[in-house]
Amino acid sequence: MDTENQPTAAPPGAGAGIRVVLVAPLYAGNIGSVCRAMANMGVSDLVVVAPRVAEGDWPEAGRLAVHAGDILASMRTVPTFAEAIDGCVAVAGATARDGLYRGHIRLIRDAAPELAAIARTGRVALVLGREDNGLENDEIQQCTHLLRIPSVDAYRSLNLAQAAMVCLYELRLAAVPAELPGEKSPPAGAAHKRRLFEAWREAMLSIGFMKEDKADHMMQGFARIFSRGVKTVDDANIMLGVARQSLWAATHGEHGK
Amino acid sequence: MDTENQPTAAPPGAGAGIRVVLVAPLYAGNIGSVCRAMANMGVSDLVVVAPRVAEGDWPEAGRLAVHAGDILASMRTVPTFAEAIDGCVAVAGATARDGLYRGHIRLIRDAAPELAAIARTGRVALVLGREDNGLENDEIQQCTHLLRIPSVDAYRSLNLAQAAMVCLYELRLAAVPAELPGEKSPPAGAAHKRRLFEAWREAMLSIGFMKEDKADHMMQGFARIFSRGVKTVDDANIMLGVARQSLWAATHGEHGK
Repeated sequence: MDTENQPTAAPPGAGAGIRVVLVAPLYAGNIGSVCRAMANMGVSDLVVVAPRVAEGDWPEAGRLAVHAGDILASMRTVPTFAEAIDGCVAVAGATARDGLYRGHIRLIRDAAPELAAIARTGRVALVLGREDNGLENDEIQQCTHLLRIPSVDAYRSLNLAQAAMVCLYELRLAAVPAELPGEKSPPAGAAHKRRLFEAWREAMLSIGFMKEDKADHMMQGFARIFSRGVKTVDDANIMLGVARQSLWAATHGEHGK
Repeated sequence: MDTENQPTAAPPGAGAGIRVVLVAPLYAGNIGSVCRAMANMGVSDLVVVAPRVAEGDWPEAGRLAVHAGDILASMRTVPTFAEAIDGCVAVAGATARDGLYRGHIRLIRDAAPELAAIARTGRVALVLGREDNGLENDEIQQCTHLLRIPSVDAYRSLNLAQAAMVCLYELRLAAVPAELPGEKSPPAGAAHKRRLFEAWREAMLSIGFMKEDKADHMMQGFARIFSRGVKTVDDANIMLGVARQSLWAATHGEHGK
């Protein structure tokens, strides 16, 4: 048994089981942009195979990594693709091309849940090919999964870092339930909403917006609008205040009766 | 009625109802990268509000647009946010920050189907804020939708063009059923698979891989592996060929009995 190629366990933490592998990239700016995308999505393991970056171009990597300088600093450079994927239990290569060896391409959206599940216990390589030539056939054959980002047929080739971002975004969404800050105000209850409608009915009659015989019909319109827009206690209080102030203005203001 | 602000109908074609609005961007490279992302995702209407790009930086836009030079060439520059969103029936702003006026943020994944549906008949502005300061409160208030791209809390700020790509990707997936090249070979039928198993049983017995009393057990292993791996007529023919050749070699070759 080839113990050197035993899969290594992924460290804990969402994204910790993902390794990004860039094959022979040309532009340092792309490497830096990939670092930033990784930092945004909670991934930190970056391996670059035989980079073709021009000597004077390397500072661009640091400039575009922005606050992901630690990922760039810990990036490993290896001479071969085999070394880059060593220890990985899944090797998922993104490819924009069809054809030979590519019959089992899946959309990244469809493959992400399986890859995220694998990454919980093992290491998953997300492989992105050359800016100019993508992945070669022998690299494609070493992939356990092939990924496609849907795009228009006329312009399929995505920027390297943007392709990385879409894949990392999908993997993160599949791994971590996305949280939103949420409404700080709780949902308005039925009684609160009933008081709101009563206050609006009275106010709209008082200011002459509607007559009694048309009131039921008009209130249907407010019901429709409020059902979509008035969700929280704060929302209901704001619109209740409008009705009460309209009523006060109609009976006390200079336009009052 | 304010006829100047009447919504304009979207031209036909997926992505045609989407307008990308960049608010006061700093870096021309980002504008060019956004053009490329738009071209990849089938969107072509770009409006930039009061760009802050340094004079000598503009060539970067063309360099990073790559094959999306036509989108860059037809980009409109306007002085105010209001002009940029003129004629749009939905204004969806991406924001990485919580707080004031941001209580109704939704994940781009959740909002994309609604926005894509609106874009079929009207125009939807996808608004991306400043690289350094995002969107200001008065801009946030003009948004009908607020969008969030999930990320790690420690590094929420995505590169402008990468944020654009994720949003445009979600909008495209919501609007256009993604197509894959698909297997060229049709699925293997039950009879084909039965012939495959019979051939393997005979071949594995013949080459001495298993004895008759263990054959049923071993065939379960092949059934498991083939059920995952042998999907198409081409797949089945390849593995059938292996069995037949093994049988031939076992009876005719130098290791035959």
